[in-house]
Amino acid sequence: MSESDTEPDDIGAGEPQTTYDKFLGGKVKLLQPKTRHHRSGLDAVMLAASLPTDLTGRVVDLGAGAGAAGMCAAARVAGISVTLVEREKTLLQLARQSLTLPANAQFAERIQILDADVTAPGRDRKERGLMPGMADHVIMNPPFYDTRHRASPHEARAEAHALADGGLDRWCRTASDLLVSGGSVTLIFRADGLADALEAMVGRFGQLIVFPIFPRSGEAAVRIILHGIRGSRGPMRLREGLVLHRPESDFTPKVEAILREGAGLVL
Amino acid sequence: MSESDTEPDDIGAGEPQTTYDKFLGGKVKLLQPKTRHHRSGLDAVMLAASLPTDLTGRVVDLGAGAGAAGMCAAARVAGISVTLVEREKTLLQLARQSLTLPANAQFAERIQILDADVTAPGRDRKERGLMPGMADHVIMNPPFYDTRHRASPHEARAEAHALADGGLDRWCRTASDLLVSGGSVTLIFRADGLADALEAMVGRFGQLIVFPIFPRSGEAAVRIILHGIRGSRGPMRLREGLVLHRPESDFTPKVEAILREGAGLVL
Repeated sequence: MSESDTEPDDIGAGEPQTTYDKFLGGKVKLLQPKTRHHRSGLDAVMLAASLPTDLTGRVVDLGAGAGAAGMCAAARVAGISVTLVEREKTLLQLARQSLTLPANAQFAERIQILDADVTAPGRDRKERGLMPGMADHVIMNPPFYDTRHRASPHEARAEAHALADGGLDRWCRTASDLLVSGGSVTLIFRADGLADALEAMVGRFGQLIVFPIFPRSGEAAVRIILHGIRGSRGPMRLREGLVLHRPESDFTPKVEAILREGAGLVL
Repeated sequence: MSESDTEPDDIGAGEPQTTYDKFLGGKVKLLQPKTRHHRSGLDAVMLAASLPTDLTGRVVDLGAGAGAAGMCAAARVAGISVTLVEREKTLLQLARQSLTLPANAQFAERIQILDADVTAPGRDRKERGLMPGMADHVIMNPPFYDTRHRASPHEARAEAHALADGGLDRWCRTASDLLVSGGSVTLIFRADGLADALEAMVGRFGQLIVFPIFPRSGEAAVRIILHGIRGSRGPMRLREGLVLHRPESDFTPKVEAILREGAGLVL
């Protein structure tokens, strides 16, 4: 999904713990912490690819990290402006540095950065500039809460709901608060967290689309992309989804085009 | 999925409102009410096909209707006995009549019929013979509650949970009550009811498998088969699923083999 240069210091980052990664065949160049999990790059690109190229308005990227999804979105879709929302200072600083790179000049002026905690209460979020109705579209790649270790069926149900309330539920509540009515949200999540994701989305968003991503044909999904419309009551659709790899382990041509050329992913 | 004879009276049903349908290429013959929706035949066969042929023990078919799923299961899997649970007298009577047909002699002795309401409280269910731990495996094709017409995001969330509590949640509670620990449940449901289905299953069953059924490649799923293990805490898996029809609208060879020859469906 991204190609790391071997000499990150070349571009003046001055941070030994960062890498300099290319996305969409070089349309986006990004400073990222070395500790960032490999897979998040692919997730970010898939999330950005799911936006239609004729989209307009403001896209808010919740928990933007170093900015991979939001910047790929801006690079692909000329009619949007993007607000990256992140609470980690190191990641915010890297995102700011990336926007100064000449390679990103095509979209840098359409990107805004907000230092805010997605899971904070509404009042605190407003103080940080996260205003109700500010977003025409929200994208997010929330942290993967572990819901697997359960003590008993009874506790498990309680815990499942507690986790949904404390984790993903807050992300979806914030997304709903920020969106205009009729605005849409797209998120990418661990496939085995599908139940939690639907629990958090149902009632807030309608016309849900569940789009699975499979490593290989015949294997279980590793990720799901979920899409919904704020205030809609339309029924959910479960899609066939996307297979990433051919049996011999390289990416399929469709996935290559998404990762290297900025091609779109129709949900 | 089934072939109706034009003269149902030939086989002595004596009921003008019934049809005489063949399943699995004639391995199962079933009296069904004419008003029964066409699709339920396919759902029942898919549900039965999902049982491994080496399964043993007691299978309880909750809301068995005229017995299509339970009888197809018994016809396919020689090592199981099957309890059909249904509350509608007309359907119970048709199931009893079907079991007297010579065509069903191969499995009729392994089928038991129980007149009981799946959604009744535990004490009432016990009085009807639905005993805790009686089932090694439960199969069910619950009624399709409509969750689409929602008044507001707030009401929608309340309503979604109320429906889950009143409808599918009760079916899953009963399934869990009847199963031995480590026993498994398989259900088939409307694909756009996935959120409700997961809500009802999570915490009761683990190692969930979500297996979508698509009418054609490129179309959204119409059904989901869900499988889970009572008391397990293993993670959920979302499968690629099954496409029913080729573009020219006949069934795929794999689906033909399931419907006409009793082939299995590996989830």
